Amino acid sequence: MTKEELFKEIKEKESFLCVGLDTDIKKIPSHLLKEADPVFEFNKRIIDATEKFAVSYKPNIAFYEAMGPKGWESLQKTLEYIPKNCFTIADAKRGDIGNTSSLYARAFFDKSASGMSFDSITVAPYMGEDSVKPFLDFDEKWVILLALTSNPGSKDFQQLSVGDEKLYEKVLRTSSQWADSERLMYVVGATKASLLKEIRAIIPNHFLLVPGVGAQGGSLEEVAKNGMNSECGLLVNSSRGIIYASNGEDFGKTAAKEAEKLQVQMADLLNQYL
Amino acid sequence: MTKEELFKEIKEKESFLCVGLDTDIKKIPSHLLKEADPVFEFNKRIIDATEKFAVSYKPNIAFYEAMGPKGWESLQKTLEYIPKNCFTIADAKRGDIGNTSSLYARAFFDKSASGMSFDSITVAPYMGEDSVKPFLDFDEKWVILLALTSNPGSKDFQQLSVGDEKLYEKVLRTSSQWADSERLMYVVGATKASLLKEIRAIIPNHFLLVPGVGAQGGSLEEVAKNGMNSECGLLVNSSRGIIYASNGEDFGKTAAKEAEKLQVQMADLLNQYL
Repeated sequence: MTKEELFKEIKEKESFLCVGLDTDIKKIPSHLLKEADPVFEFNKRIIDATEKFAVSYKPNIAFYEAMGPKGWESLQKTLEYIPKNCFTIADAKRGDIGNTSSLYARAFFDKSASGMSFDSITVAPYMGEDSVKPFLDFDEKWVILLALTSNPGSKDFQQLSVGDEKLYEKVLRTSSQWADSERLMYVVGATKASLLKEIRAIIPNHFLLVPGVGAQGGSLEEVAKNGMNSECGLLVNSSRGIIYASNGEDFGKTAAKEAEKLQVQMADLLNQYL
Repeated sequence: MTKEELFKEIKEKESFLCVGLDTDIKKIPSHLLKEADPVFEFNKRIIDATEKFAVSYKPNIAFYEAMGPKGWESLQKTLEYIPKNCFTIADAKRGDIGNTSSLYARAFFDKSASGMSFDSITVAPYMGEDSVKPFLDFDEKWVILLALTSNPGSKDFQQLSVGDEKLYEKVLRTSSQWADSERLMYVVGATKASLLKEIRAIIPNHFLLVPGVGAQGGSLEEVAKNGMNSECGLLVNSSRGIIYASNGEDFGKTAAKEAEKLQVQMADLLNQYL
């Protein structure tokens, strides 16, 4: 999916919502456990319930990997089921030497090899340029690079001073030379909405994937105010706040309600700041 | 496996060799492709051929992941096949917020969930303490944290100055507070053998996993001279130099020969520096 196509979806749905499919077999409603593939069944119903309100879906790969080979089958089926007009993100936080990263790219982008072809993958920056580049060798696929994350541990290294800037700023500045905003996005945690303005000064045009709105307490209003650009430039993720909003048989309806609440706010914010 | 048990194996085999199972279906000898599971068949023969000379095996997870669910089945079977006295490393470079890292830990350490229980996993440090700690919640399992890697991209961020030290030194110093040398090891690329002395000053007791000897040109002699401690403290990995030493039907024999060459050098170095 191109940046232009993504922006078109955002305008049509009046939403920049990404639904995080952090689907834990230990947390889904118990009545689904009788299904042949409970994880896929859960995802299917979540997607059905939320697709009107979301422009993107982000399976968190750890949750599927934790189930062994059958988890990967659930993941494949889930990816197939996501409507083609939605931007798909493999939230995998991969990254290794070039030779190995090219295999990770094969895993998430080359359907003939792995059975899956996501639009994008999240990548960790620690190993530098040659660990990121192999993902960009696939046409029309995106890298979403970790810059500033929303967890407490982001203080340990990301926020250290490197010369006259923070490490995450250095990561933004350096990596923005590797690909333009048509192929590269960044993960920027919403708990630092106040820093979004400074981040926008470094990368005005790139899309930002913003986790941590909702459960982790970030404010959507602040994110839009400081982070939106002329093509929206934001994908805001909500996982647990939507998919686990109810643990009963009504979990689909409740997920839809939560997704719609965010979409309505997002429509307002798009009107206000775009 | 405990540190004491690992050191015992090293002394018995007179080896600190780790064989990297970077098994690419596109590179294995063609006569294996008629097998039901060519990747497992290849690994089985490599393990049979090298187990006398190696104390550790390190499947590179990307290579299995690139094949989808059946790759994970090959990985499970490979792990089952590795002799129990060998230290097993899931070279996965994972790391995410705490909640997600605990699922990655489940994937590689909890056999009841994923079908696999490695002794250790490689982890990327960028997201800080709470992204690493969940892996340490599993008793007797190890984290092998990326510090200084052997690829060109290690210059981009790892070698930047943070105050009066390099980022990778800061990673060593900070993370060595999270767990002691009974649970934590580090990845240190052999192409920087000259830096090993300085690294040893920061973490005298931790084991180092050293990739990049052989194919990438690091010198085993230099690594041992600068990196060995009183419990050896080194696992030196060789992947392509062993497993792809021959592409013919004799690949097992050739792998054994290459592994033995390294083991003989290692025996000498253990005598000299231990």
